[in-house]
Amino acid sequence: MDKQLGIGLMSGTSLDGIDAVLIEIEGSSVNTKVKVIDSLTHEYESDVRHALKELCFPETASLEKICSMNMFLGRELGMLVNKLLDKASIGKEEVLFVSSHGQTIFHKPLGGEKRMDVPGTLQIGDLSMLSEITGITAVGDFRTADMSAGGQGAPLVSFVDYILFNNPYRSRAIQNIGGIGNVTYIPRNAQKDQVMSFDTGPGNMVIDEIVYRITESKQVYDKDGEIASKGNVNQKLLNKLMEHPYLKLRPPKTTGRELFGNSFVDSVMSNSSGLPSEDIVATVTAWTAKTIADSYSRFIESPSNSIDDVVIGGGGSYNPFLMEQLRRYLPNKTVYKHEDFQLSSNLKEAIAFAILGYHCLIGKSNQIPSATGAENPVIMGKISHTQPQAFQQLSALRGNLH
Amino acid sequence: MDKQLGIGLMSGTSLDGIDAVLIEIEGSSVNTKVKVIDSLTHEYESDVRHALKELCFPETASLEKICSMNMFLGRELGMLVNKLLDKASIGKEEVLFVSSHGQTIFHKPLGGEKRMDVPGTLQIGDLSMLSEITGITAVGDFRTADMSAGGQGAPLVSFVDYILFNNPYRSRAIQNIGGIGNVTYIPRNAQKDQVMSFDTGPGNMVIDEIVYRITESKQVYDKDGEIASKGNVNQKLLNKLMEHPYLKLRPPKTTGRELFGNSFVDSVMSNSSGLPSEDIVATVTAWTAKTIADSYSRFIESPSNSIDDVVIGGGGSYNPFLMEQLRRYLPNKTVYKHEDFQLSSNLKEAIAFAILGYHCLIGKSNQIPSATGAENPVIMGKISHTQPQAFQQLSALRGNLH
Repeated sequence: MDKQLGIGLMSGTSLDGIDAVLIEIEGSSVNTKVKVIDSLTHEYESDVRHALKELCFPETASLEKICSMNMFLGRELGMLVNKLLDKASIGKEEVLFVSSHGQTIFHKPLGGEKRMDVPGTLQIGDLSMLSEITGITAVGDFRTADMSAGGQGAPLVSFVDYILFNNPYRSRAIQNIGGIGNVTYIPRNAQKDQVMSFDTGPGNMVIDEIVYRITESKQVYDKDGEIASKGNVNQKLLNKLMEHPYLKLRPPKTTGRELFGNSFVDSVMSNSSGLPSEDIVATVTAWTAKTIADSYSRFIESPSNSIDDVVIGGGGSYNPFLMEQLRRYLPNKTVYKHEDFQLSSNLKEAIAFAILGYHCLIGKSNQIPSATGAENPVIMGKISHTQPQAFQQLSALRGNLH
Repeated sequence: MDKQLGIGLMSGTSLDGIDAVLIEIEGSSVNTKVKVIDSLTHEYESDVRHALKELCFPETASLEKICSMNMFLGRELGMLVNKLLDKASIGKEEVLFVSSHGQTIFHKPLGGEKRMDVPGTLQIGDLSMLSEITGITAVGDFRTADMSAGGQGAPLVSFVDYILFNNPYRSRAIQNIGGIGNVTYIPRNAQKDQVMSFDTGPGNMVIDEIVYRITESKQVYDKDGEIASKGNVNQKLLNKLMEHPYLKLRPPKTTGRELFGNSFVDSVMSNSSGLPSEDIVATVTAWTAKTIADSYSRFIESPSNSIDDVVIGGGGSYNPFLMEQLRRYLPNKTVYKHEDFQLSSNLKEAIAFAILGYHCLIGKSNQIPSATGAENPVIMGKISHTQPQAFQQLSALRGNLH
């Protein structure tokens, strides 16, 4: 099969914007080869971020706004793709697909007692709009397929981590620190069903919201860990934070804004009265690091399961204070960044969703049941090709597959 | 191209349940040939209907319930498909696709003044869940593609009406009376871009809700028009109802529960105080008929545009009182039912969505811009194949296309 061009789009729970990456891809599963051609990031304008934030809270998420923002965001995603193609001087007819994670506004991996209270999730950014604006086949809305097979609909990147980081001699923990922290554990020389993955707990979500509040909306994250590095970690607050029940829950488990969003930050702030702002930021940053290390010793490591390497990705890998804390809490492991593997942390998730979308289009399973808790493998994703030429391109590829 | 088996699923705005139809299909566009093999209807249980009704009102539609019901309904749709296949003694591996309209819980065809207040729509009943439960490729979520091209996302059935009813000698109005009334006008010997379509106004939605209230929840619709036929049409109330601003709005136009739902029925009831219940039902039934006839003379008929035949479909065609009123208000036209064309009114929309889904899968436009107001033709629909064998079946078909 020939090399194909595709685009991956990621818009994370931290609501900072959209990452777009243009890649060249060939092969599939463990033989997948990916090369980054170009990339572009779009920061949400403040009114858009505000509107999306409203949707993340059940109290302010109206049905009308959900539907409007689904279409609005589909258009934003499409316009970013068109800009990226302009920048790279590539025509849409050369690109096979755009694959988009979408903006998560709700994720409930576990059901309740009533028969209609089943697990559900919602990623907005309409795929038909994305396809229509770009003229390219769009893939996305991955999580519901995994949940249909009994999985928690997350973490999805573990399939891609397995493809990119499996190694015959080293056992690895691939740790993403986005809004939420999540890990993929790949034992040395692993088979797909030995891969383990779960959300470790908070990523940057709590740090970001606290920085936003104490800087009175002037900063949306702790750039280069500068605020934290001026403060001291408060042991009493740290111990209190470590009591969060999610941290003791056995995997498979996933979490999001429901547990570590605004109302959680309210409680952190009320537990921090009297502390200097810098100490609060330093402490929640240390806490994020400690929840990760603690997750490893509690749920991964055993006499038969070691961890040799930890590879940090996501926005958190650019926070030196957080990296320092991670190395402190993980003393006997080599702590890498994704960049040490020629992979941009910033782009990792966008690349991952390009890989997931490509596998959906060629009809190969793109999910790891042992990571999500699903009963069986599935092909995740939904496909939209609003224009005949996008469909024909896809058909030609599939013709080559058979 | 060989004949293919496919399934169409319709769940209308009247929230009565799901119609499933198994069809044999071949050809495409005006050469499409369809044969009904079997069908099955699932009435929503009362708790499900109640939960869906809650979702249709922005005040009671919580984000969590939307997400849960999306998955719950995907499962219900899938289980109905499996039952239909059992009934027909057909294996899933013989069926190419399932195409589902989904349950509309919101539809706003026009945007507001703010830049993020764009048109949007939401049909629930997750396609990946549907594919996973059935093991068959699922298609659905059609409306957003049309809206992405500037259309109102409705009416979608006009494409199918054009395929099935275009005639070299007769000009036809194909009138569906579901929850909402909508018409497709096909001039004699029409080209696709001469087709006109819009929502005429209320269908059974207002009648049903009033019957539900006056029978104290014992009846959900006026079976065989029995209640209406015991009453008299109240001319004063009828004139008042005819003043509804939607009826004067020029096409393209679409409507739904937002205009003719509970709060509208509240106002009808308060305008009807003192009238016998039967008179209220008779009057809103006559009103439904009159809005249809009035729409024709106001927006379709002109010296160059005649209507020879009116073909009534949807639940309304089984209400003899409503049919009598229609004939009264349409004195110079032949008023048919769909059954006169060997097409079940009950199944018409489910068949229509099977046809739309099939066109999406083979990459052919399945929409009429002159009907929806879109700027350009699109291929509507999103596709999910959670299992490799479903994907392979689809690929084999597409291989035959090229």
